[in-house]
Amino acid sequence: MSLHFTTLEFERRKNRLLAAMAERQLDGMLMFQQESMYWLTGYDTFGFCFFQSLWLGADGRFALLTRSADLRQAQHTSLIEDIRIWRDAADSTPQQQLRDMVADLGGAHARIGVEYDSYGLTAANGRKLDAAFDGFAILDDASGLVDYLRAVKSEEEIFYVRKAGQLALDARQAAIELIGAGVDEGDILAAMQGAIFKGGGDYPGNEFIIGSARDALLCRYKSGRRRLDARDQITLEWAGTYRHYHAAMMETAIVGRPRDRHIDLFNAARLALEACAANIAPGRTAGEVFAAHAQVMDGHGLAEHRLAACGYSLGAKFTPSWMDPPMFYEGNPWVLEPGMVMFAHMILMDSETETAMCLGRTFLVTINGNEPLTGAPLDLIVNSR
Amino acid sequence: MSLHFTTLEFERRKNRLLAAMAERQLDGMLMFQQESMYWLTGYDTFGFCFFQSLWLGADGRFALLTRSADLRQAQHTSLIEDIRIWRDAADSTPQQQLRDMVADLGGAHARIGVEYDSYGLTAANGRKLDAAFDGFAILDDASGLVDYLRAVKSEEEIFYVRKAGQLALDARQAAIELIGAGVDEGDILAAMQGAIFKGGGDYPGNEFIIGSARDALLCRYKSGRRRLDARDQITLEWAGTYRHYHAAMMETAIVGRPRDRHIDLFNAARLALEACAANIAPGRTAGEVFAAHAQVMDGHGLAEHRLAACGYSLGAKFTPSWMDPPMFYEGNPWVLEPGMVMFAHMILMDSETETAMCLGRTFLVTINGNEPLTGAPLDLIVNSR
Repeated sequence: MSLHFTTLEFERRKNRLLAAMAERQLDGMLMFQQESMYWLTGYDTFGFCFFQSLWLGADGRFALLTRSADLRQAQHTSLIEDIRIWRDAADSTPQQQLRDMVADLGGAHARIGVEYDSYGLTAANGRKLDAAFDGFAILDDASGLVDYLRAVKSEEEIFYVRKAGQLALDARQAAIELIGAGVDEGDILAAMQGAIFKGGGDYPGNEFIIGSARDALLCRYKSGRRRLDARDQITLEWAGTYRHYHAAMMETAIVGRPRDRHIDLFNAARLALEACAANIAPGRTAGEVFAAHAQVMDGHGLAEHRLAACGYSLGAKFTPSWMDPPMFYEGNPWVLEPGMVMFAHMILMDSETETAMCLGRTFLVTINGNEPLTGAPLDLIVNSR
Repeated sequence: MSLHFTTLEFERRKNRLLAAMAERQLDGMLMFQQESMYWLTGYDTFGFCFFQSLWLGADGRFALLTRSADLRQAQHTSLIEDIRIWRDAADSTPQQQLRDMVADLGGAHARIGVEYDSYGLTAANGRKLDAAFDGFAILDDASGLVDYLRAVKSEEEIFYVRKAGQLALDARQAAIELIGAGVDEGDILAAMQGAIFKGGGDYPGNEFIIGSARDALLCRYKSGRRRLDARDQITLEWAGTYRHYHAAMMETAIVGRPRDRHIDLFNAARLALEACAANIAPGRTAGEVFAAHAQVMDGHGLAEHRLAACGYSLGAKFTPSWMDPPMFYEGNPWVLEPGMVMFAHMILMDSETETAMCLGRTFLVTINGNEPLTGAPLDLIVNSR
């Protein structure tokens, strides 16, 4: 077993969760989010694509039910000692096996918190879970309980977040060195992701966003690469990822002479990002950060070109997305605290003129404000080679 | 809009689904699997990390409900014309908006097939969906309906699968050129994934598996890279990915002199893979392929070192996994057909001696058997540089 955190750190995390469970009067938790399992025990896998669950009882005991392919994965990467296996078969009933496991650990008639809001628990499996536990125990939706605890990072986590920030900057440098007329997007993507792997980093929680020409207006990954034109725009969103901790960045780089519209949008994006940065501080809400962004954008007459959200928390995330709660959207009351890692992305997409301009940076919330984790100049990247 | 398939191809796919819906007496489908949306319309995004759904009515009309970040993504990548947006807010109710959309399209009191078994529909959102549609329409679990259609590939799909196969071989070559004493796993990963990006390929549906020394016994990705020792073993599982179509391979490569146990396990793995290949043919079941694998493994006294599954179907898959049904496990009655793409992986993990040996190849099921899509020699890779 090789863990990325000290035993003391894992003990602290478990105790924080046990306290939150006691407050909610939960006798146990059934976790389905890989993020929760990684945070609590180190268990590191994409095995959540199948049915699996981590139990934590109020007595502090962990137990994992998973498939045979993840037995050694749990042994090598986590502190979980009690690992049980369900087997694929036409008539396999892993939800019943989970109930039996919980019974074995004294969970009959218990009040059990369940992470229903989890990619690791599809709606189909959720129904089977409910059926298997019907009359056996009370299942209570405890989605978000661990997310809330995970949002504030410890010193040990911040160490990895800083590494992720450095890898994000390495990837940015690799991109800037390559971007130019005639260059293939695929080469840029290889260089960016390669810089992160070579630096000991991980796959990101979602694909890097890369799109040029009209597709620079997209803010998701899509299949199909192209070569950059002599005058072009390319939107990139990426994250340095280390021990699954993310530090994200976003830029729209210009090849050849920028259009006036690029410069107008960039100026608004920079002002909006600065306004967000001024509000990323303890005591401010996620909604206030969004409002700061919207005020600048809308003041520049760009209301129809911005999105309904302008960033989110980052942490140790698994696929399909590196986005963690809280998100910067209108009225979100979640209060920022020191130790939170927040990504602010200014996304401007003018479909009429097919002009894109994006700018994003990651910040660590500190006692008196924030500290940039991806410190690169806020200048429009123009490559006229 | 730039589609990766012809209009005729998309028409054929829609008609196949409409026929299957008619057979199941469904008036409409609510799809939550990104794979279904991509296959039917081209819609290419990781936006399924949030609530979104694609409607197909028995009248052949599509409509998508998604977030603002995916509006242009749907416009640029899919043939969907009716795109509706729900907005993030503390009190947002996208499931009700979905019901209103379906009402608008004539779906009141309809019998609607729902993809409940989908990463895009968490158990929490499934409950909200059921509540929103209660008394409005009948929701019927139609998980797997599109998966079943997707399993058999068309000529247009096989074109991309072949590209994926070539990219898998390119990645293999990049790895073999690098593997040796003192080499960092991160450099190997960068070279393999880089070969695929440079060739116009995509991120895989799950992370490549890379692990050496004791961690060569793992068959999932984990964070944390190391350098290879003078005598070492490294297990790699990867997929060439093109237009999201996968062709997977697996090898355990040896650095320095192999142990006798490596050679024993390799010989069994090769025989088992050959036995599977002899059974990957039209009319055979997925269970028969598994049985062929198990017979060889168990005949060599390796029953406790093999897994309970030895492969699966491959296609256009999104995160968190590239695995598609059917899977090769005991008794699986799914019958193989021409046009199916099947990955067979022989995984032997001897924990006692900490010896790993894996071998995997992808096959296209043809009219009279199969054709290897990742044709590389079945020899033990030994690098004694």
